[in-house]
Amino acid sequence: MAFSVCPAGEQFPLPGPEDYEREALRLRECAALEREKGRQIVVVMGVGFVGAVMAGVVADSVDRETGESCFFVIGMQRPSPRSYWKIPYLNRGVAPVEAEDPEVAPLIERCVKKKRTLTATFSYEALALADIVVVDVQCDYRKEALGEVRQGYAEIAALEDSLRVIGQLIAPECLVLIETTVPPGTTEYIAYPIIKKAFDRRGFKDREPLLAHSFERVMPGREYVASIRDFWRVCSGINETAREGVERFLTRVINVERFPLTVLDRPIESETCKIVENAYRATILGFLNEWSLFAERNGVDLTKVIQAIKVRPTHSNIIFPGPGIGGYCLPKDGGLGVWAYHTLMGFEDDIFKITPLAIDINDTRALHVARITRDALRNMGRIVAASKIALLGASYREDVGDTRYSGSEMVVRKLTEMGAELSVHDPYVKHWWELEKQETYPAPGQSWSRFFRNQERLTETRVHDDLAEVLAGADAVILAVRHKAYLHLDPDRMVEMIGRPAAVIDCFGILDDAAIRRYFELGCEVKGLGRGHVKRIKDSVRNRPAS
Amino acid sequence: MAFSVCPAGEQFPLPGPEDYEREALRLRECAALEREKGRQIVVVMGVGFVGAVMAGVVADSVDRETGESCFFVIGMQRPSPRSYWKIPYLNRGVAPVEAEDPEVAPLIERCVKKKRTLTATFSYEALALADIVVVDVQCDYRKEALGEVRQGYAEIAALEDSLRVIGQLIAPECLVLIETTVPPGTTEYIAYPIIKKAFDRRGFKDREPLLAHSFERVMPGREYVASIRDFWRVCSGINETAREGVERFLTRVINVERFPLTVLDRPIESETCKIVENAYRATILGFLNEWSLFAERNGVDLTKVIQAIKVRPTHSNIIFPGPGIGGYCLPKDGGLGVWAYHTLMGFEDDIFKITPLAIDINDTRALHVARITRDALRNMGRIVAASKIALLGASYREDVGDTRYSGSEMVVRKLTEMGAELSVHDPYVKHWWELEKQETYPAPGQSWSRFFRNQERLTETRVHDDLAEVLAGADAVILAVRHKAYLHLDPDRMVEMIGRPAAVIDCFGILDDAAIRRYFELGCEVKGLGRGHVKRIKDSVRNRPAS
Repeated sequence: MAFSVCPAGEQFPLPGPEDYEREALRLRECAALEREKGRQIVVVMGVGFVGAVMAGVVADSVDRETGESCFFVIGMQRPSPRSYWKIPYLNRGVAPVEAEDPEVAPLIERCVKKKRTLTATFSYEALALADIVVVDVQCDYRKEALGEVRQGYAEIAALEDSLRVIGQLIAPECLVLIETTVPPGTTEYIAYPIIKKAFDRRGFKDREPLLAHSFERVMPGREYVASIRDFWRVCSGINETAREGVERFLTRVINVERFPLTVLDRPIESETCKIVENAYRATILGFLNEWSLFAERNGVDLTKVIQAIKVRPTHSNIIFPGPGIGGYCLPKDGGLGVWAYHTLMGFEDDIFKITPLAIDINDTRALHVARITRDALRNMGRIVAASKIALLGASYREDVGDTRYSGSEMVVRKLTEMGAELSVHDPYVKHWWELEKQETYPAPGQSWSRFFRNQERLTETRVHDDLAEVLAGADAVILAVRHKAYLHLDPDRMVEMIGRPAAVIDCFGILDDAAIRRYFELGCEVKGLGRGHVKRIKDSVRNRPAS
Repeated sequence: MAFSVCPAGEQFPLPGPEDYEREALRLRECAALEREKGRQIVVVMGVGFVGAVMAGVVADSVDRETGESCFFVIGMQRPSPRSYWKIPYLNRGVAPVEAEDPEVAPLIERCVKKKRTLTATFSYEALALADIVVVDVQCDYRKEALGEVRQGYAEIAALEDSLRVIGQLIAPECLVLIETTVPPGTTEYIAYPIIKKAFDRRGFKDREPLLAHSFERVMPGREYVASIRDFWRVCSGINETAREGVERFLTRVINVERFPLTVLDRPIESETCKIVENAYRATILGFLNEWSLFAERNGVDLTKVIQAIKVRPTHSNIIFPGPGIGGYCLPKDGGLGVWAYHTLMGFEDDIFKITPLAIDINDTRALHVARITRDALRNMGRIVAASKIALLGASYREDVGDTRYSGSEMVVRKLTEMGAELSVHDPYVKHWWELEKQETYPAPGQSWSRFFRNQERLTETRVHDDLAEVLAGADAVILAVRHKAYLHLDPDRMVEMIGRPAAVIDCFGILDDAAIRRYFELGCEVKGLGRGHVKRIKDSVRNRPAS
């Protein structure tokens, strides 16, 4: 018997043929009942990171005047061994995503158990019942080589499969809202022909599919639900009916009074909007890499320079890039744009100069952490291959447990390839999936051309939450993420836990000058990304007359 | 007899040998008198765009407690035929810079005539009397070829000359504050050795020069004075005395209570700060060029996409790049950084990827305006070489008269090279100096490899302020700058002034969709930078059944 195992270890048997029939019946009865209450049926396809919470937000929304729920939501997910467990989870009222936001768990529980406006299913039958389908199926971008985003491609097959099923099953008047971040043009160049052809085959020859696009701007962390519900939205429809439909839907679901909706003319415009805003952010960060190197080599502390620049309102979004960028969106979205231009629109010239370059810079920035770690160890007469290295912070962002494409992953891969023994600490991360070699869950970078040495060591890497254990006996300590727990670590206490002077690598402007000075006084070697001034502090400590 | 001619045409004879002696005497008496009043003598070297107003701001400042002026300011300028007139101008109480800011003229008049805290001189004698020298001598960046900023170099000779004179004349305890935007490292690698050696020669062997750096963040326009006085400042000194000196000085002169001062450790850090913040801005703008092209080719209106993105607080500084960037700073400052890395610091590797690329993209973006003008004319059966083209807006920025490195200049140069006859309108620009071929005032781009054809036509180009005159008989109208006067031009009235349907080129998201539609209805052809949706509007107008 096949099972799906949830992260907590519980086994859920995958549904068999008889389960499908029972489930279809349940959904039909359920939908009929809800329709009687005047509710529309919304199917959210894909209950992953975005879909699960979006389903909750829709199910939680009420009519502004009557206070009644307008929607009954069915979260839908293919019953794969990897994901099926999310469905029984949801139906118990338990959120299938881990989130630092305390609003997530009660939102899901409330909608499933109290309001009864949310259920979950593995059956495509839901689509046949839908007034609105929200598509939250992932569209990844596959990179074939490290730092060469242009050689990658959009992994659009799963989305295409979903659209095919949608075309086969939905009622022709159903609104299909694509919420996934997609290559610009996807709604018109991919979704429309698929669904139109399916309609033709089903005899709806003169029915135009009602396709819309509206992207989310989800931010992992403590404001996760708010980043869906209480944030500005952009939407568009493929024709006037679809445009009006998506506008009406989002006006009911999103807090548009405080965060007005932008309606653009065509889906390609809202699709482009999402790509441009994330490519913009990636560019801002990629730009600073070269100034970070400049700073290191010329006695400049880039973190102070950035503080001095940030005071200008026109420059307030300048941020230090840390050891690479990471997260699900910024490393890939620009790539989706470049891919669309060549593949969907068929252009051969190369208008994209900065967008792919910024991604390549960001993707390889973490390798520089390995270099300065090597140099710091060398200054202490040690080498990477014979060193134990403690990495503090596995996630891509401070105070979240999200390790997707994190800079820390590249640091671990590179240093492992160089022969180091890594120990990892992160208070938010229980298991670092990306380091596992596992066919059903290919890690980003796994197929890349580097990091083929010492794979077994990589797979063995575990994340600990006991700092003393991770630090004990380390030759080098890498401060990789601005988790709260790392911002005020006392140098004396650190050296005590390590057991002797070590190399201390600051990837994110975590150490202030007093701490840097103290580490040097304790015999440590300090280096930091973009922190060229550490050499001055070192000189002032070493040249100080013995007292 | 040699003269200096001011822009209004008045001739000022250059000073002769006897004038120098008289002037030195005047300054000495003046300084002695002011010192008796307890005032410090501040010499501002270079009374150009920044120096003149900085001199006024210092002269206008008062002690926060006593309300008394703390400084007597001497504006200093070499008596060259090009610039000497500024000195008698200032001494009459007239600002030698044209500014849209109504505060400039009264500021200068007040300080010279009422407060008597400001005078101007051509004599270096002022330096010998100074407690503080503020260096506002220009440091340009010379580009040798279009779109290849790496081949350029910092024109640092004038600054070096000034520093040599300063080293020869100042008292050793005088604070030298470099305010010019300079290649990072200039204060330590260029200014320090020059002045230190001069001190050595003068017998001050154990005196360390008191060198400081603090850059301005001047913005042309109606807030010009405020952008010096009421804005955040960054400063640094070469040693503790210099650092304390510059901090004390700026605290008296700048509104540091509302706009706190940032004090960085070393001059290279504040020098780098200025370069990074302007390179950042240039990068943000350069990034959008590729998306502007993408938009044009794929039915996207980038100006609406940008509006939709701007609502995010982290993305609020995203702005449409228009027909190139322009202004004095953004096209050059990143170049100063790259140059310093190779030339002052001696590195040979190439860490700078985005900084120079963004400048190259921005510098050549205006050429695309010529291309879409060509295409629009072709759609009407006309060619550039036989066309009269009206350009609306010569300056680089809306509602200022500053033409330095404006995108419009490149548009005019390219279309002139292609054979067009240009007529130019700008309500803020009286004369377009950059288009003149004149040895003493080489225009940017004059030595570049393109634009060698039809130079005589270029030189003849005049700027008019009568719109009807400029438009009459035009084959194409280029809306190049978002001047207020251009934001609501009525299409019917425009076509009336032109006299027939023309090509209308929108470089800056000036036309709304209704105006675009109306131009098409009137038989015009419309194209715009980043405005791919015009084709949809055109189709909807042309395919409309005749009524």
